[in-house]
Amino acid sequence: MQLAFEKSGGLLPAIIQDDRSGDVLMLGFMNAESLRLTQQSREVTFFSRSRNKLWKKGESSGHVLKVREVRVDCDADALLLRVNPVGPGVCHEGYRSCFFRSLDQAGSAQVITERAFAPDAAYRPQRPSSSGEVK
Amino acid sequence: MQLAFEKSGGLLPAIIQDDRSGDVLMLGFMNAESLRLTQQSREVTFFSRSRNKLWKKGESSGHVLKVREVRVDCDADALLLRVNPVGPGVCHEGYRSCFFRSLDQAGSAQVITERAFAPDAAYRPQRPSSSGEVK
Repeated sequence: MQLAFEKSGGLLPAIIQDDRSGDVLMLGFMNAESLRLTQQSREVTFFSRSRNKLWKKGESSGHVLKVREVRVDCDADALLLRVNPVGPGVCHEGYRSCFFRSLDQAGSAQVITERAFAPDAAYRPQRPSSSGEVK
Repeated sequence: MQLAFEKSGGLLPAIIQDDRSGDVLMLGFMNAESLRLTQQSREVTFFSRSRNKLWKKGESSGHVLKVREVRVDCDADALLLRVNPVGPGVCHEGYRSCFFRSLDQAGSAQVITERAFAPDAAYRPQRPSSSGEVK
């Protein structure tokens, strides 16, 4: 089927949901090429808007996302990927899910889950940490 | 907290998840005003990109989304709303979730859930259907 990549400048939002728990883990963006690579390898590759290039999730941390199913919405302009995540979490801040904060009605954020891992160790394995502290 | 509305032209993707089942129901976009209205009324209002205006979900169908919780991701550029949906489904095509199709590796789509309601009846209550057929 034809996906509506042109609607958002070539990128579709891609929701990542844990296939076992149902938890929403993160949201990324995909262009046609990253979706093709994702389908082919069965591991998630996004298109990074900030770096303006393909971004294989887990390329530095090893926390890849194994694809169980790719769904598309009614307007063909959003994707939902059900995955089995490898490793303790997907968030570069050390949480299982990037959605680790709740917003109250006044707009204040509260962290609602525990950190699952030390992001320093996962994301900068070549640089020894002087303190071991989770930043 | 400050949300990164400027990153995507004033709009953040907002994932809608059923609070009870964990199913992802749809993805919409919110500007600051639609998020404010959503938080205030505890019912979801999006910003429609195609109509370029605020869009109270359920304004014509009555299928409003009662907000249980609003979450924000690590980069403050995506929202996750856990909701209790009113009515049989959120999709204008008559499904519980807008993500009613699965994409195979060749890019073909398969409908994977049953229709939950007749969209004609829900979305065009003033116009009698000549056939009663679900389009």
